[in-house]
Amino acid sequence: MKLATLKDGTRDGCLAVVSRDLKHALKADHIAPTLQAALDDWDYCAPQLEQLYNEVNARQSTRIFDLDPQQLMAPLPRAHQFADASSFLIHAELIRKSRGQDLPDGWKKDPLMYQGCSDPLLGPCDDVIAASEDHGIDLEMEIAVITGDVPMGVERDKAGQHIRLIALMNDVSLRNLIGPELAKGFGFFQSKPPSSMSPVAVTPDELGEAWDGRRVHLDCHAWVNGELLGKPNGGKDMQFNFPRLIEHAAKTRPLGAGTIIGSGTVSNRDRSTGAGCLFERRAEEIIAGGEAKTPFLKFGDRVKIEMLDAEGRSVFGAIDQAIAQLVKT
Amino acid sequence: MKLATLKDGTRDGCLAVVSRDLKHALKADHIAPTLQAALDDWDYCAPQLEQLYNEVNARQSTRIFDLDPQQLMAPLPRAHQFADASSFLIHAELIRKSRGQDLPDGWKKDPLMYQGCSDPLLGPCDDVIAASEDHGIDLEMEIAVITGDVPMGVERDKAGQHIRLIALMNDVSLRNLIGPELAKGFGFFQSKPPSSMSPVAVTPDELGEAWDGRRVHLDCHAWVNGELLGKPNGGKDMQFNFPRLIEHAAKTRPLGAGTIIGSGTVSNRDRSTGAGCLFERRAEEIIAGGEAKTPFLKFGDRVKIEMLDAEGRSVFGAIDQAIAQLVKT
Repeated sequence: MKLATLKDGTRDGCLAVVSRDLKHALKADHIAPTLQAALDDWDYCAPQLEQLYNEVNARQSTRIFDLDPQQLMAPLPRAHQFADASSFLIHAELIRKSRGQDLPDGWKKDPLMYQGCSDPLLGPCDDVIAASEDHGIDLEMEIAVITGDVPMGVERDKAGQHIRLIALMNDVSLRNLIGPELAKGFGFFQSKPPSSMSPVAVTPDELGEAWDGRRVHLDCHAWVNGELLGKPNGGKDMQFNFPRLIEHAAKTRPLGAGTIIGSGTVSNRDRSTGAGCLFERRAEEIIAGGEAKTPFLKFGDRVKIEMLDAEGRSVFGAIDQAIAQLVKT
Repeated sequence: MKLATLKDGTRDGCLAVVSRDLKHALKADHIAPTLQAALDDWDYCAPQLEQLYNEVNARQSTRIFDLDPQQLMAPLPRAHQFADASSFLIHAELIRKSRGQDLPDGWKKDPLMYQGCSDPLLGPCDDVIAASEDHGIDLEMEIAVITGDVPMGVERDKAGQHIRLIALMNDVSLRNLIGPELAKGFGFFQSKPPSSMSPVAVTPDELGEAWDGRRVHLDCHAWVNGELLGKPNGGKDMQFNFPRLIEHAAKTRPLGAGTIIGSGTVSNRDRSTGAGCLFERRAEEIIAGGEAKTPFLKFGDRVKIEMLDAEGRSVFGAIDQAIAQLVKT
């Protein structure tokens, strides 16, 4: 099933089920007021939500309404945890190579993971707000899973069973703040402002054979101002699959229901598939012997991120948003 | 006023007001079901909670019950954000000096901050669960503020007005995981398991003159197995005060109501005040020309953290907890 969160003036929005073709929706707040509430009590809520999903697909209710992505918050507008990894190693390899550095051996054996901003998470059509273009505003196209309760110390062969939902994210990065921040040794904070989520989060069965329990084997498209930046495949070159990332995140803590685990920028070794962020393209320009020519995002620029299934149908709907300047009040 | 969260079998517990002497309590769920809900609608809820606080202090209700800290969750059992800093620079100086390193100049000008685990947060008497003593289990005695909504880009002179509550924390650290994790460059994740919070979070006015709007000028006591580890003053040697930390955290994101900002280990340059964590004591042993003699925490060890006011009364109640081994189910 496909789940979304409607803007209703509250902080956590109103839970809704969305038809498979993303055209229609039904409010589901009589089952659980919010997606977090549904995840908190998933075994009880999921069968009822499934029934509602069948109704919206069959158009069996007079309460069905047309879905307007503009009216959506992130499926989880504020989560309790966003553990973001860097699983597609070619992304890090390119960036390091452009600086004349190799990938440390340890990065191939153990996932890189940091705790990202989970409050707020932006809706699919919400503006990305930045204080200055000088921060080096970049998109990062990611796949994310949302877990149920995961016991501390879970092993990878049991971790996958806790995956409840899958979504896309735009993990916005402020490239010019990353260097100084990482040099201080404590990881990202200011350089990773709020991320955005796709219109819907879907249960793994929605992906059919494209989900093998570990990776999403579909192309992930990113456009900047209408120009295709890349369409790498989510199933290729993901060094650490999702159960492995969950195992890593839960090594010293239990994960609460609603924890978001991000893949890191989706990127393939076959560079004809393009890039999942502007920084990769800039790194390739530098490696090719020149300077970075591709600029970072400017105010007014638009970013679109969408995944299509084998039949060309949008799975999660599109993240489709503009970059805007902070207006201080 | 003093606010707490009662264990009631739910994930977020039940909001209660606690008497100034920490002996009695009244359920407050008719005003707001949880502390997060109260923070979400603070201007509406706070005056009603104040009235209840007057009642519990005057013992004006038959619904008053004796407070049992064992029955408390963390005031926020799962928060949406925990931004933890390292503001008492002597803490970092000692650790670096024990490794023959100076403090980087940048650390004196700009706060070190990472995003910590905010789900779960442990109650004051909950066990700290670790998988292995080999992880190097340590306490870190911290002061934290809980904010209301803070606009992105807030300046330090306006940041303090968003402080709603103050609490103590035990920011548990797994010292032997920190080195390898920081060396990977993404900051802490596995090395910072769930932290614990004091029984109550208090409004700033509860601190009287000990709160100057920026720092808490009271001694913070830490004991390990009944032995005093240190009693540094929260108002001394805090390089970056709380409004400055809020400004730092909100530079590229708005902070949602219920955001927790941690001070980092409370520690003073006057070393007769002792240490706020075992790692500091070990560093001093190394600097004194020898090896670290003080062990990290073992299973069964107990940690107690408490702040006393000028009259020797506990302000927040005590974090008083044992270290326990993970039992895999």
